[in-house]
Amino acid sequence: MGEPVLGRRLMALLDLFARHSDDAGKLTRLYLSPAHKSAIAELSGWMRAAGLAVAVDALGTLTGRYESAQPGAPTLLIGSHIDTVRDAGRYDGALGVLAGLVAVEELASRSERMPFAIEIVAFGDEEGVRFPTTLLSSRALAGRFDSACLDMRDAQGITLRQALVDFGCDPEQIGAIARRSDHLLGYVEVHIEQGPTLAEARKPVGVVTAIAGAKRLSVDVIGKAGHAGTVPMRLRRDALAAASEMILAIERIARAAANIVATVGNAAISPGAPNVIPGKVSFSVDLRAPNDADRDAALSGISQAMEEIARKRGVRLESQIVHETPAVACSPSMTECLTQAIRRQGFPAPMMVSGAGHDASAVASLCPVGMMFVRCAGGISHSPEESVTTEDADVCVRVLLDFLRGFPESKIRVR
Amino acid sequence: MGEPVLGRRLMALLDLFARHSDDAGKLTRLYLSPAHKSAIAELSGWMRAAGLAVAVDALGTLTGRYESAQPGAPTLLIGSHIDTVRDAGRYDGALGVLAGLVAVEELASRSERMPFAIEIVAFGDEEGVRFPTTLLSSRALAGRFDSACLDMRDAQGITLRQALVDFGCDPEQIGAIARRSDHLLGYVEVHIEQGPTLAEARKPVGVVTAIAGAKRLSVDVIGKAGHAGTVPMRLRRDALAAASEMILAIERIARAAANIVATVGNAAISPGAPNVIPGKVSFSVDLRAPNDADRDAALSGISQAMEEIARKRGVRLESQIVHETPAVACSPSMTECLTQAIRRQGFPAPMMVSGAGHDASAVASLCPVGMMFVRCAGGISHSPEESVTTEDADVCVRVLLDFLRGFPESKIRVR
Repeated sequence: MGEPVLGRRLMALLDLFARHSDDAGKLTRLYLSPAHKSAIAELSGWMRAAGLAVAVDALGTLTGRYESAQPGAPTLLIGSHIDTVRDAGRYDGALGVLAGLVAVEELASRSERMPFAIEIVAFGDEEGVRFPTTLLSSRALAGRFDSACLDMRDAQGITLRQALVDFGCDPEQIGAIARRSDHLLGYVEVHIEQGPTLAEARKPVGVVTAIAGAKRLSVDVIGKAGHAGTVPMRLRRDALAAASEMILAIERIARAAANIVATVGNAAISPGAPNVIPGKVSFSVDLRAPNDADRDAALSGISQAMEEIARKRGVRLESQIVHETPAVACSPSMTECLTQAIRRQGFPAPMMVSGAGHDASAVASLCPVGMMFVRCAGGISHSPEESVTTEDADVCVRVLLDFLRGFPESKIRVR
Repeated sequence: MGEPVLGRRLMALLDLFARHSDDAGKLTRLYLSPAHKSAIAELSGWMRAAGLAVAVDALGTLTGRYESAQPGAPTLLIGSHIDTVRDAGRYDGALGVLAGLVAVEELASRSERMPFAIEIVAFGDEEGVRFPTTLLSSRALAGRFDSACLDMRDAQGITLRQALVDFGCDPEQIGAIARRSDHLLGYVEVHIEQGPTLAEARKPVGVVTAIAGAKRLSVDVIGKAGHAGTVPMRLRRDALAAASEMILAIERIARAAANIVATVGNAAISPGAPNVIPGKVSFSVDLRAPNDADRDAALSGISQAMEEIARKRGVRLESQIVHETPAVACSPSMTECLTQAIRRQGFPAPMMVSGAGHDASAVASLCPVGMMFVRCAGGISHSPEESVTTEDADVCVRVLLDFLRGFPESKIRVR
């Protein structure tokens, strides 16, 4: 293996790009913020320097188009997002956009044209930090923008509509963002894994077969509060002991099922004093699976176990679904093309499920999507400690290039 | 059984007494408050009307003395507290003081004198609501007042010293409160159970053999936070799942031991978001037992179980004792006298452990103490829903009278 030239270029661009922040001393780049604006300006410059035709749509999504040799050729999208959480790492999102750019820079430097156009897409709203929504810009691309979102407000009370106008966008033009699927070959997204699986397995990249669907429950366990000293154990209806048994049942059921993750991330105890038996516990359950049937089967097992525990302990159980997103399968043919490209570059191509949501979930309703995960140290993301090696960055650009060059002609229909 | 005349008198006094409140519309009578002052004034009047000699000591404790027929006879104390929690019930504390008064009223109305003097004692600080301490006045009676307490402040920044002066007490005289044990036959306290055992067993009263000691632990479980979607179950170190297993182990160990109660009353989860695996959970453990050896054996079992769970799950455990009070045994002879009096009145006399603390715990270092519990509906206390029946109130005064009249002469030494 030679010098990781492409990886070095990608890491250099990622470092430069991380300077676009709304907070001094750390990386925070919220949707439609000044940092988002300056990031778009710099990225546009890099795109133009590589010969790409640049455009910003009515929701602030930046695209850079690298034309095909063949007129009327379809378009392949390569993208991810350039917004971040607060105090973020520099790889989540930006890596996918800039990996695409570095691959196209390499093609352009050799005047290589593909039998399809390539568009690098930089979405602006994936993290959902500023407004109470997420995937606004990728859903609009798929023709699924909900105009009611324009009236949502951020923490300062600014509506999305106003924020767009302030950013220089025309909300009236949002309808024009939707793409026609018959012009698109597909959408490829490279993203850090945000989990420890690749690091554990010592593999640089993996192929995503599905983006997990999620159901989120809110569970209330109502027992009977009482004096910690005066109520004998056998007469208690302790809501926290009941909730603890439920939390362990949830863990057991998720462990037993393949491909399921279940998390109780928060719990509130009432009254919540050291000398009072808990009368009520409210907790959240987050359940994810690569397909909705498996997820719902696990949910049904969990509900049954919780009801049994509640009955046995004489506590009341109230549970409701507060959030639901369906699982999204990646395109088998895109997945196969990515797998072949990874193997041609000399690496194993483990199949993975993405437990986190991505722009690809939204674009999947428009065209075939494929995703490649890149190893990140310790599986850490949403933190300044997020880390990717230059070698892995290099693998990821080389795989992308190989994927582009090796894309099967049979799949490319010219209009 | 005749009309519950004494019970009706006791309930009438309790109803009148409940009007002395610092809060309109509910019962709140804090230590050294205006309501405490007016309660002392009214109770003093009732005591004087029954022929008792009234005094208020330097910590606001009111005593009413009913002299013996024999000069130089020892004194028997009957008491409890007249402060309350906020939004309290009318029986916790006041019942014991007023039951003593009604019994002495009955003796006085018949000009019956005992071979010992009787003092009705109304302590002012048992609930520990106003100042960050408890049992101030009963500890002072036992000669164990800590003068550092005078500098403690309430929520308004008023020191105990200032509050005493404002109440009309002279802090310089606190040293004189301590009683000499050789003048005392003992201390008897009647109190509502504050637990459901008597109500469950359908018995009006019970005899307390010991006041449980308590240890309170603060436990931190440190695992590893992570994304709820991207970390496979087998790679998690979920602090809440570990804490749940510990909470169930604590419950199991307390259930298996006789006379132990253990409570996890509060837990804080960090970071505490539905889509983040908990990285840290801090919880409290409150452990009580009628003797310290049993309590410490249970604690050692709990610590061992928690360490094993932590080891198995790869989480870190940090635990420390934040509070400790030793168990107090009631006097076997006082307990026997109470038991005989209950039986003579035609009721069973179940032996009980008090899981809550009482003034008797403090007085036990001065003289023999005995305690009788009275059934309260549903075991509810510290709430306006606290409830005692007229019939049970009647039983409790008749038992007290029988106890006084039947007190064995062999135990009474005249100076």
